[in-house]
Amino acid sequence: MEYRFSKRIENIKPSAIREIFKYASDPRVVSLSAGNPSPDAFESEAIASICKSIFESRPIDALQYSVTEGYTPLREHMLGYMKQNHATGRDFDDILIMSGAQQIMEISAKILCNEGDYIICENPSFVGSLNSFRSIGTKLKGVGIENDGINIKELESALDKTPNVRIIYTIPNFQNPSGVTMSLEKRKALYELARKHDVMIIEDNPYGDLRYKGESIQNIKSFDDDGRVIYAGTFSKVIAPGLRVGYTIAPFEIAKKMVVAKQGEDVHSNILAQMICHEFLTKCGFDEKLLRLRHLYGKKAESAEKLLDKYVVPSGITYSSVEGGLFIWCRLPKNVDMLEFCSLAVREHGVAIVPGSAFMVDENDPCDYFRINFTAPSDERLEEGIKRLGDFALSYIP
Amino acid sequence: MEYRFSKRIENIKPSAIREIFKYASDPRVVSLSAGNPSPDAFESEAIASICKSIFESRPIDALQYSVTEGYTPLREHMLGYMKQNHATGRDFDDILIMSGAQQIMEISAKILCNEGDYIICENPSFVGSLNSFRSIGTKLKGVGIENDGINIKELESALDKTPNVRIIYTIPNFQNPSGVTMSLEKRKALYELARKHDVMIIEDNPYGDLRYKGESIQNIKSFDDDGRVIYAGTFSKVIAPGLRVGYTIAPFEIAKKMVVAKQGEDVHSNILAQMICHEFLTKCGFDEKLLRLRHLYGKKAESAEKLLDKYVVPSGITYSSVEGGLFIWCRLPKNVDMLEFCSLAVREHGVAIVPGSAFMVDENDPCDYFRINFTAPSDERLEEGIKRLGDFALSYIP
Repeated sequence: MEYRFSKRIENIKPSAIREIFKYASDPRVVSLSAGNPSPDAFESEAIASICKSIFESRPIDALQYSVTEGYTPLREHMLGYMKQNHATGRDFDDILIMSGAQQIMEISAKILCNEGDYIICENPSFVGSLNSFRSIGTKLKGVGIENDGINIKELESALDKTPNVRIIYTIPNFQNPSGVTMSLEKRKALYELARKHDVMIIEDNPYGDLRYKGESIQNIKSFDDDGRVIYAGTFSKVIAPGLRVGYTIAPFEIAKKMVVAKQGEDVHSNILAQMICHEFLTKCGFDEKLLRLRHLYGKKAESAEKLLDKYVVPSGITYSSVEGGLFIWCRLPKNVDMLEFCSLAVREHGVAIVPGSAFMVDENDPCDYFRINFTAPSDERLEEGIKRLGDFALSYIP
Repeated sequence: MEYRFSKRIENIKPSAIREIFKYASDPRVVSLSAGNPSPDAFESEAIASICKSIFESRPIDALQYSVTEGYTPLREHMLGYMKQNHATGRDFDDILIMSGAQQIMEISAKILCNEGDYIICENPSFVGSLNSFRSIGTKLKGVGIENDGINIKELESALDKTPNVRIIYTIPNFQNPSGVTMSLEKRKALYELARKHDVMIIEDNPYGDLRYKGESIQNIKSFDDDGRVIYAGTFSKVIAPGLRVGYTIAPFEIAKKMVVAKQGEDVHSNILAQMICHEFLTKCGFDEKLLRLRHLYGKKAESAEKLLDKYVVPSGITYSSVEGGLFIWCRLPKNVDMLEFCSLAVREHGVAIVPGSAFMVDENDPCDYFRINFTAPSDERLEEGIKRLGDFALSYIP
């Protein structure tokens, strides 16, 4: 039979980059295209022993239906931790456990936006979130990014000119894909603009704990006097992404509606995974774990930059040095066909990188960039991948 | 600040029954209101040992990001099992692992329905699914149920008169809450009507494996020549609901769009839980497990009916004998205020039952029924609960 699909799902078009991802799974290809943590970062022995003790002491709790809001000890611990360590969470805020941070984006749009309402986002931005928003039938308005974060003038103009803006979506720390961190000044300006136009903010912070250099900047949520920020956190980058456990800190009234929406999506998040995260956070030295992670990834970032300087920069490709996160955002010289470059890199030279257009609100907008990840490959594969990229770039770029 | 919510989420109104659920969590209350499997049904030792072996042999696979479609060995095993044992799944069908069956309902509506499109459902029906559909902004048209399933004449008239019907949603086996099983004749008639009006069918089958008496009836999906049935299966009732693992068998084209939608919701389902289900299904004697479950629940159903006959039926309340599933659907005599009855039962007599109106498309429609669950309470608590209900009913019903 012939199927008819909803307008909202037809909004998400299959794109040129899928082709590239297909090649990336070939084992002969070095993938610099994923967003995966390093396998060396997983504390699998600690997690195995936590699992064992959960099944010894509370097997039924780990297997039975649970509540939509999430595992109470994990909620309480995490809200306390975020209040104490990041001044994030007020008396008017609640915390909910979600099935990864992705669910926070989708559900925020679902409860706040009618079809056709606008969400303003950084351009480029994380394609997973953009597709979440699209799947709800919202429209996207992109605002450019500078070295210190979103372009505030452009944001102001977008707020003035775009009808029915309901949310500003931002990744203030080590933005995906640009790697840019928003200055404190801009965070405050963004908040004031949101207040002036009475819109909500989603502050998506998957990489905040992964700073390798420089000083941390306070979360937007930390100065959220009005209750207009939905903070999105996740354990994917700091414990394990396969568990699919994230959390949101949001005003009670918002959280209540999120619970209604979540009930209709998956009833509650896998409860064993929530119990694992709670045990891991409270008994396995989480702060030391973060130090180890920063050390591991900081070293990987440093070698990636050295390798880029050695093999890739001579071709004319440039990049900005990273202070944290998982990605390096690289720029091709003018007049190079970025999509063809990325496509040939994977098809003929065995190295997968993500074309920057994948992250654009309109993927047909001009884009000279591509994204590489330095955390997932081993040191050897990283060198091999960047060498392949450099060799190809030198021969391809005039 | 003052929050404005989307129309779709405002569709899901907080209802009178939430009040009752609040009381049900009081430990002094005997809860006959849940839909939980019996804790005695969980094979926690087997699952603990599966976990141990997964962390010994493939810890990284269990912790790293995985694919949206689901864990390949589980998909392949389950599709083979369903083809062989239930003639369910054709060459044009794919299988996807979902975060519980709930996600199948929500995503089916998301990809197939525009706002304002109609879904036809049995009335009463499972409130979780109805709220999933509402959260997508679809409208619901309810069709009554008879002893052998949906009222076919009413269904035909609903299809004739309702604009933009996209889906018929049905629970053909041991329907929640009515307990009714649809006859083969009606399954075929429903399929023919769906064909005539070119609408899709969601066949939700959480209880099909839990038949205690009588003969199984073939799935609607087994005669789906057109590819218009989305089959929804789950391990919640037969392995453990806390794992949140379900599966859908649906035509490739539909499955492809479901993957796009699922990517935007939770990227993929918890991978450890998927690996646990696969190991459990292939190595722990799943068919014997089903026999044990049927024996355990069949005995519980039998005692529940004996207890109802002894304590409750003398008050004038009637019920239909169950052949499977988790619930008994009880009917109050005429002119008894059902909501007040349920409310007093929990508030003053310490027994929680679910008012039937919770399952109605319009909860203000007249409804004389309430639902009780017999699988979750222990034998002692079940007797205590039904005795409390009977004592109260005898004093309350004139």
